[in-house]
Amino acid sequence: MSAILRSRIFPSWAKVLHVSRPTHRYRELGQGWQLLCKQGYAVQVSNNIDKKCLDVTWEDGVTTNYPHIYLRDHCRCPSCYDPQTKSRALFNCVYNSYIDCIAQDANVSENEKIIQVDWKDDNEHPVSRFPLDWLRAHRFSNDNELKTMNQVYIQDRHTWGKEMKDNIPIFDYQELHENDQTLYRWLKHLTTIGLTIVRNTPQEVGQVTKLIARVGYNRTTNYGPTFQVKSKTDASNLAYTTGGLGMHTDLTYFNYIPGIQFLHCIKRAGEGGENQLVDGFKVAEELRDNEPEAFKMLSKYPIQYFDIGKDFVDFHQLAQHTIIQLHSNGSIARICYSDHARSPNLAVPQDKVMPFYDAMGTFLKYVYDPKYMVNVTLDSGDIAVFDNYRVMHGRSPFSLAPNSLRHLEGGYVDWDEAASRLRVLEEKYNIDHFTGIA
Amino acid sequence: MSAILRSRIFPSWAKVLHVSRPTHRYRELGQGWQLLCKQGYAVQVSNNIDKKCLDVTWEDGVTTNYPHIYLRDHCRCPSCYDPQTKSRALFNCVYNSYIDCIAQDANVSENEKIIQVDWKDDNEHPVSRFPLDWLRAHRFSNDNELKTMNQVYIQDRHTWGKEMKDNIPIFDYQELHENDQTLYRWLKHLTTIGLTIVRNTPQEVGQVTKLIARVGYNRTTNYGPTFQVKSKTDASNLAYTTGGLGMHTDLTYFNYIPGIQFLHCIKRAGEGGENQLVDGFKVAEELRDNEPEAFKMLSKYPIQYFDIGKDFVDFHQLAQHTIIQLHSNGSIARICYSDHARSPNLAVPQDKVMPFYDAMGTFLKYVYDPKYMVNVTLDSGDIAVFDNYRVMHGRSPFSLAPNSLRHLEGGYVDWDEAASRLRVLEEKYNIDHFTGIA
Repeated sequence: MSAILRSRIFPSWAKVLHVSRPTHRYRELGQGWQLLCKQGYAVQVSNNIDKKCLDVTWEDGVTTNYPHIYLRDHCRCPSCYDPQTKSRALFNCVYNSYIDCIAQDANVSENEKIIQVDWKDDNEHPVSRFPLDWLRAHRFSNDNELKTMNQVYIQDRHTWGKEMKDNIPIFDYQELHENDQTLYRWLKHLTTIGLTIVRNTPQEVGQVTKLIARVGYNRTTNYGPTFQVKSKTDASNLAYTTGGLGMHTDLTYFNYIPGIQFLHCIKRAGEGGENQLVDGFKVAEELRDNEPEAFKMLSKYPIQYFDIGKDFVDFHQLAQHTIIQLHSNGSIARICYSDHARSPNLAVPQDKVMPFYDAMGTFLKYVYDPKYMVNVTLDSGDIAVFDNYRVMHGRSPFSLAPNSLRHLEGGYVDWDEAASRLRVLEEKYNIDHFTGIA
Repeated sequence: MSAILRSRIFPSWAKVLHVSRPTHRYRELGQGWQLLCKQGYAVQVSNNIDKKCLDVTWEDGVTTNYPHIYLRDHCRCPSCYDPQTKSRALFNCVYNSYIDCIAQDANVSENEKIIQVDWKDDNEHPVSRFPLDWLRAHRFSNDNELKTMNQVYIQDRHTWGKEMKDNIPIFDYQELHENDQTLYRWLKHLTTIGLTIVRNTPQEVGQVTKLIARVGYNRTTNYGPTFQVKSKTDASNLAYTTGGLGMHTDLTYFNYIPGIQFLHCIKRAGEGGENQLVDGFKVAEELRDNEPEAFKMLSKYPIQYFDIGKDFVDFHQLAQHTIIQLHSNGSIARICYSDHARSPNLAVPQDKVMPFYDAMGTFLKYVYDPKYMVNVTLDSGDIAVFDNYRVMHGRSPFSLAPNSLRHLEGGYVDWDEAASRLRVLEEKYNIDHFTGIA
């Protein structure tokens, strides 16, 4: 039985009758979705009891079928939903009602801005009322998965090559502490570019933790809440030189790899010690275009990594990751590669060992190609902050003058924290999540 | 050109000639692989320069083709590999040698326990020497991916239902601090059973952190390094009752969900406050057997979760996860479900909304089935410790006597830390990773 509860006549889609016109700017803060209600809706509402579905046809001709259980599950009344925390107060709706939940009636009311649903045989909770705005913002589509991915994962990337050398976004340490809008711009650049430098930092230990506190809290690892990279000369070896480091991402031997790396140059080396930085997403995109077989291998077969030793704790870390990790829609989610921790235990079958090495070699040929590489020498007081899921970094050898010391402090914060801080700031300044426009 | 460098005649596989007999117990600590050398090897070694491959035929008839680049990459000489940290000292081998690396000769030497490889045109590093043991432990197969997965991920699970009520592994707080073998047994039970109770804990804040320090370090979240769950009566409301909590896993709105949860009952409630615990892996296995369509839906389409508020920091967390997460080989990797943080933004396409709700309902029907559910009342001094990637937990309503207080302290440690501690202890006590036998 399908009962047309309320029907409108549309002479043509060009002329819409009985349009409800919410004029406020609606924002579903809890979801990162928003709907600017510049257009009103003309709707046709039909409750289909047989299919346990409320069918709403919108002004653009699209019909959304809201299952009754979905509506009951997301009832917005104060006993079911706490608007302050934007979280469900109703527990176990799906469990308790997953078969029996039926809307016996549904009507548009209150100046056509609300659909009221009357529940069958539920004396304790007889009705739910949904703003049309809310239903419109939550209409389903066949792109639902893409939509939720766009909300959860960073999609707005600007990939770069060597030209980034003169374009690295620079921020002032003190301003990041004092100004939330600067903090927002900095984090936004970390999502889009993946690389920033913070200048004028006091040249003493502890600043990484202070800056991370503006985002969230330190991601502790087996090397501690932060770690010290020190090289010093001594009388017995004045020509002390520290070797280079190949291009890598950090802590590949964690299943749960830290998301953003901080490297504070407290005291720079005498000579050398230049850092190399490469946008791994750029490299992966180039590989996808030019070396599809290598791309396929590198996004299919994981590499095993391990790390054994004693530092903040004694440890034996072990994990495996593909060099290129993809989202379910094929977009690039993460780059992960490190030479020193790479294990001889291969995940590829025997006949793919050679092709896998070829693919790794091709990847590294791109990574070391000068056209993708940015060379940076950090000055004392600089903090390089970069996306450890994306930007590969390395270091050229350096030498120390007699009685000198090179000292860096490093640390991490997770993307969960950084993305959370971004959302909080977007809400504070009413900034659109996708355009970055207030 | 294929040059047979060394060949043996095998009259039959039943009788093996020229067997090299390493008698020591070999263990590749860095990898978690081991090979008990009770059997020696008879090998046939053939260097194939055209294919840049060293082919080794083992005593069981299996031939392994080691690409030259693989051997160069994993050279075990002191300048290429640091045996103390078990990590590669040679950087950029794959990049520098990915085309040109050729072994011009290979010979078995030193009482037939070593294969020496002579590199072409490499005056700085003319030879590499590989123990046969090492090569044997790293021979490739078509199961390579399964092998590395077995090393990295916990595979040895003992799933359970309500019968676990009388079988929960119990440990003594003080003994866990004093005895590393007890610590090992506790962590091993956390991997296999996923649920333990630690008794006789001092009834004061801080014990969760002390116990976590035996494993690694606290996983901080937006609720702090640990969190306090307090309910107290006051004069105005003596009948104060705190409601129940549906079955859930914790912090589903993180992309990186904490791995192991600690709940220390510092002061128990007057009445009620019973905890329910369910093995989500058991439920998922039952679903796979009995409700394959639901299983497929729940392992395919993610649910979006969010959390907004202010606690240790102000936050807006957002993530999405399937209820059942699988490894690439189809084994169950993680269970993730929480009601209160579940978002109305669905990842399923329009025509799958209803079937998805049906699948969620089926899942919860199993979760709440008494045959899978363990009811536990924590006493003051108990710490429930359980796998947050596996064990769902809930709470029944409770009431407080006048002037009383219910107080729990909670905290998390990540599986990276717990698995690392297990490996360190296995190495300390020479315990086999897979059998748990010393």
